[in-house]
Amino acid sequence: MKKEIILLDHGSGGKMAHRLISETLLPRFTNPILALLDDGAVFNLPEGRVAFSTDSYVVDPIFFPGGSIGDLAINGTVNDLAMCGAVPSYLSVGLIIEEGFPLSDLNAICQDMQNASRRARITVVTGDTKVVPKGSADKIFINTSGIGVIPNHVRLSGQNAKIGDRILVSGSIAEHGMAVLAKREGLEFDTPVVSDTACLNHLVARMLATEKEIHVLRDPTRGGVGTALNEIALASNVGIVIHEDRIPVKPEVRGICNLLGFDPLYVANEGRLIAFVPENACGAVLAAVLEDPLGKDACVIGEVTEAHPGRVILETVIGGSRFVDMLTGEQLPRIC
Amino acid sequence: MKKEIILLDHGSGGKMAHRLISETLLPRFTNPILALLDDGAVFNLPEGRVAFSTDSYVVDPIFFPGGSIGDLAINGTVNDLAMCGAVPSYLSVGLIIEEGFPLSDLNAICQDMQNASRRARITVVTGDTKVVPKGSADKIFINTSGIGVIPNHVRLSGQNAKIGDRILVSGSIAEHGMAVLAKREGLEFDTPVVSDTACLNHLVARMLATEKEIHVLRDPTRGGVGTALNEIALASNVGIVIHEDRIPVKPEVRGICNLLGFDPLYVANEGRLIAFVPENACGAVLAAVLEDPLGKDACVIGEVTEAHPGRVILETVIGGSRFVDMLTGEQLPRIC
Repeated sequence: MKKEIILLDHGSGGKMAHRLISETLLPRFTNPILALLDDGAVFNLPEGRVAFSTDSYVVDPIFFPGGSIGDLAINGTVNDLAMCGAVPSYLSVGLIIEEGFPLSDLNAICQDMQNASRRARITVVTGDTKVVPKGSADKIFINTSGIGVIPNHVRLSGQNAKIGDRILVSGSIAEHGMAVLAKREGLEFDTPVVSDTACLNHLVARMLATEKEIHVLRDPTRGGVGTALNEIALASNVGIVIHEDRIPVKPEVRGICNLLGFDPLYVANEGRLIAFVPENACGAVLAAVLEDPLGKDACVIGEVTEAHPGRVILETVIGGSRFVDMLTGEQLPRIC
Repeated sequence: MKKEIILLDHGSGGKMAHRLISETLLPRFTNPILALLDDGAVFNLPEGRVAFSTDSYVVDPIFFPGGSIGDLAINGTVNDLAMCGAVPSYLSVGLIIEEGFPLSDLNAICQDMQNASRRARITVVTGDTKVVPKGSADKIFINTSGIGVIPNHVRLSGQNAKIGDRILVSGSIAEHGMAVLAKREGLEFDTPVVSDTACLNHLVARMLATEKEIHVLRDPTRGGVGTALNEIALASNVGIVIHEDRIPVKPEVRGICNLLGFDPLYVANEGRLIAFVPENACGAVLAAVLEDPLGKDACVIGEVTEAHPGRVILETVIGGSRFVDMLTGEQLPRIC
């Protein structure tokens, strides 16, 4: 049987495009809003604060240990909404596909998007498909944008870190970046590194139910934990100290990082969060996070200080200390 | 002076990415919501129905007579929201840029996005920038997603066309597609064809202020007027008749279409709308449209019939009639 591929025609807005949408895309995300196929989705929102986020996903390879560009695209935008304290509700999916892309791969990616949407309990309500000539894009790029409502009591922002806050990380770091790199380079290891891609909205709900006064949530994706902490130190104009011996990195991940010369602090994560929590609430929040399967390796890695505002300091294992800067130079293009 | 170009580093999430955002992107779209630079934008919405739409723009060439990928990306999503009857309010912008792309072109595109946002009175509140290695994308792709609130009395949908409705088009057709094609192919004509790219939300507001019982609005982009009418005939399960002699096509556009073998009914428009209006309101709505600079060539091109539900019939200039099908085959890849 001839392998079915995506043709330019599938992006024409005409007959083939309608067939692709009705046979491949719609059945995965069936819901009454999407089914109308108007120029946009229409739904009701309650009065209040809304979070709105967008991300384009260009990861290479598109399939990697632990996930694919499909679940990454759903989880990534769900997580961005969750970091705003919103309950993620509605997603858009915009596909840019290279002519000649295998239809079977598109089906697998759509299946992953469907599964990830279900886990996150989010509804894909609108979409767009463009096909570009062979060579004008590399396989497939996915944009997702999302909307969620923020409960009244929640006030999260990168500007809200307060002196004395404890800094909690929800699990071991640097796994997504190293999993993608290992797959891209064809590296094989005894203990394979698997991406941490996951939706964090249910974990966030659990944390906010325990303590509504959490100050900052951030998912350390591109640029890693090091860059995310720098962004928060700058936005809140506070100092940050983290302790190298408390930062959880799995041995196999540390092994690859050492071998290839990467600092785990700058490697992308796709299913981890950093939380800035008032000192007196830290024990309760950590306990709540540890109860969640996605937070079982959580720990406190540092605290917010009055000293050196806008900077991040790492206290090293050997007892020294150094500034952790933002990522400079691109370590890993197309990591998400 | 060395020509500045986009480097992989600009998409790293690190220092260079922050510089690109703060020097090139933020100054164009400055507003208090975007300035927070959290994982998503946060704003208040009133209770009610919300429209949410997404589109990726991959037009080639990125600059063409009458516009660029920048204003196209703003106008396109503004128009999709307007076609839902929403007042477009908030936009996201997701950029995928090829390594080596000239910074001056990015600046020009951002300037066009800024101008188009101002004209449409919409606020860009969140964004994302990815850079892919040279050869992995062709220059630049832009995704915009948008949100708008729908006034209570408005009920627009592709499913709402009613027998007896008059079909109005807001201006001459096929200009965007032919302008892009002429530029792409390096064709020159005595009277150059200029894209019709424009935001239609103010025109729609004028129409809905005149007559709230408009049944369907649609902007005939990819696939053109012919495909849009077929979609509506199918969604509403009604027949449609249009009259060839009433369909406005500028002579220079008809000339290129004839020369190159394109049917104007299938060529993309980016600043035109089709409206399905109850017969008794048609005169008032047409008068209102004609008052708007974007509607000065508006006319009624057909009507909705009980006969042949789901099909579109063209009554030709020579007195015959034929079915107008959806577009089959891709006429023009990367037209929007």
